[in-house]
Parts: sequence; structure tokens; C-alpha cells
Amino acid sequence: MARTKRAGRRSGNPDTRAEILAAARRLFADEGYESVSMRRIAAEAGVDPSLIHHYFGSKDDLFMAAIELPLDPAPEVAAVLKDGDIEGAGGRLMHAFVKIWDGPHHEKLLAVVRTSLSKPAMSFVLKQLFEHRIVKTVQEHLGDQVDHVPVRASFIASQVFGLVVARYILKLEPLASLNEAELAESIGPTIDRYLTMPVEHLIDGD
Amino acid sequence: MARTKRAGRRSGNPDTRAEILAAARRLFADEGYESVSMRRIAAEAGVDPSLIHHYFGSKDDLFMAAIELPLDPAPEVAAVLKDGDIEGAGGRLMHAFVKIWDGPHHEKLLAVVRTSLSKPAMSFVLKQLFEHRIVKTVQEHLGDQVDHVPVRASFIASQVFGLVVARYILKLEPLASLNEAELAESIGPTIDRYLTMPVEHLIDGD
Repeated sequence: MARTKRAGRRSGNPDTRAEILAAARRLFADEGYESVSMRRIAAEAGVDPSLIHHYFGSKDDLFMAAIELPLDPAPEVAAVLKDGDIEGAGGRLMHAFVKIWDGPHHEKLLAVVRTSLSKPAMSFVLKQLFEHRIVKTVQEHLGDQVDHVPVRASFIASQVFGLVVARYILKLEPLASLNEAELAESIGPTIDRYLTMPVEHLIDGD
Repeated sequence: MARTKRAGRRSGNPDTRAEILAAARRLFADEGYESVSMRRIAAEAGVDPSLIHHYFGSKDDLFMAAIELPLDPAPEVAAVLKDGDIEGAGGRLMHAFVKIWDGPHHEKLLAVVRTSLSKPAMSFVLKQLFEHRIVKTVQEHLGDQVDHVPVRASFIASQVFGLVVARYILKLEPLASLNEAELAESIGPTIDRYLTMPVEHLIDGD
């Protein structure tokens, strides 16, 4: 009986699920993750809010389902940050990066990145993923050790997104063939520097 | 009279020009820039090779026209490299980057990048642009000062492509608002390091 109920929760009515996902995508794209409530999405989809919770769980879970990302980067980033000192975090991030990107979700991850980079209306996917899953996680784990986390995170994102482009989309050699230890040694220090360089003067009005 | 002739050379027969460009795009994509001759492209387009020279000039010029890039990055990179020491090249590259990317060709450049990143069949555009305009230029100017130029260039590309993504596609702040001096100071040292770090051990079989 428990098994049947569980399967029911995951599958649900395909039409209702699809309508909720379409409404969520539309509202996240137009208004941003933060300002859209579960209640708004329910109204847009014409369903009861409890049904969204029933099908998808939390707002984070709904966002991940809406953008069709097979894997939430937040716990991966959290593991990198809590598992040692700031020095060396860049190297650990490169190990996690390879584990995720060379793993079973590779094709799906690449599809999400391609879609988000190709259509202006879809850039919100990577942008909100970055702001609401990555920056938030870094803030939680390093907020008491480094200042201006969102600033530092945007520099790190520029190197990491560029690595995705160079290694997996353009397949530039030798970048495409380096293993995690080689990427940790070559690109890790770039990330460590972005976590520690002075950034106060890069922020307008501060 | 000279004026009429010049205009004639640029415009030509629209159908013939379009056929040459389509043939060039197809062959560059399938077989790569190096292995495709002007003669091959002429045969594919069903025109005399002299007509390609007449309409487009050199093979480099034809490539730039085929990928619809409004500006050849090679002379810009050359100016950065010959205009000072290796130390500081990263900062100078960031100044050139902003001049190009925030200049009049912004929309067109962004369209080329989006297209190349979104469709697997189009990734050859950025890849060949990198290999045959950028790496070659860096090799010419720094080949006697630094080893393994293509390796270093692939790391630099990972940071620069990532900057395009973060600043112009995702518009992450504060990266999207930084001026050239601020980018030179924050990202320049990353590029300088990629130009000087040891890389021999990152190359298989070397």
C-alpha cells in the first residue's frame, strides 16, 4: 500500500503536473524565483496550492523540476565548502565538478546549459540556479569567513561556466582530456584567488 | 569608376555569394578549417575558385564571412600581445575585451556565441575561431617566450568564454557592470597565471 501511494505521489495526473510545471517556468522566467510564491503558481496553473506540495514538495524542488535539472548543485557545493579550509576549496570544487559533469547526468546537464545560453528568455535558468542554489549555499558556509560572497561567486561562476563551455561544448584540448587532479591544480588556484582577493572597491556605492 | 568597381566587388551576385558561403559553412563544419581548400569550396559551390577570391579575398576572410563574425579577433589579440611585456598581458586583454564586446558589434557577437554554444553542429565556429585566429596569433607573438601556447590558450579561453557567459548572457552582478580597469585588475591576473604556470605535465605523452 505504501509503495502504491509513493508511486502515486511521483507520477500524479500527467496533465496537472505539466500545467504546474509550465506555470512555474513562466512565472520564474518573468518575475524571478524569489518573488513568485507557490500560491501564485497554483493560481496560474488553476490548481490548489496543496497539490503543488503534494506533487513536488518544496519551492526549491519545484524549481529544479521546472528547469528539468537532474541534480541539485547546492548539496555538492555545500560538501566542497564544509569539507576543509578555504585554501584548497578551488581544488575540491574541481573534483566535485568533474564528478558531476563526467557522471551519468552529463547529457542532461549539457542540454540545460545549451538551452539556457541559447535563448534570452531561458537565461533565467542558469542565473537563478546560480543565485538561489549556489550563492545561497556559499553564503551559508563561508558567510562568516569571507566578505561579499555574491561578488566572489560571480567571478567563480565566470571561470566555471567557461570551463563547461571550453571542456564540454567546444572540447578544446587539453582541457577536454584533463582529469580532476589536473583541473584542481591548474584551475583550483583561480577559484581560491577569487575567494580571497580584495573586492570591496568592485561594488558600486560601497 | 573606382567607387563603382569596389561596390561591385563587395556585393556581387547575391545567389553566387550565398552559395559560396553555404558551401564554406558546410565544409568548415564537417571537415574543419585546415583541411578544406578554397578549391574544394569552389567545387562544392559549383563556381570557379577565382570567383571566391574575387568575392571574399583570402581563406581567412571567407571563414570570417561564413561564420558572420563582424570583427576578426586576431589583430586585436596581436595588438594586446605586442604592446608590452607578458606580465600585464591579462590586464591589456581585458581592456581589449571590453572595447570589442561593449562596442558597436555587441549584438552580432553575442548572436554568434549563442548560436555556436546552442547547436552541436555549430560549435565548430567558436572552436575554429579559437584555433585558427586566436591560438595562431598568440603563437606568432609569444611562441619564442612561452612554451605550449595552445595549452595556455585553452585555459585563457575557458576564463574569457566564461566571462562572456557571466557578463553578457547571464548578466551576473557585479561582473556585468565592471569597467575595463576593474576587469583588468580582477581577471587579468588569472590570465597572466595561465600564461606563466607550468603546463608540461598537463599534456599526454609529453
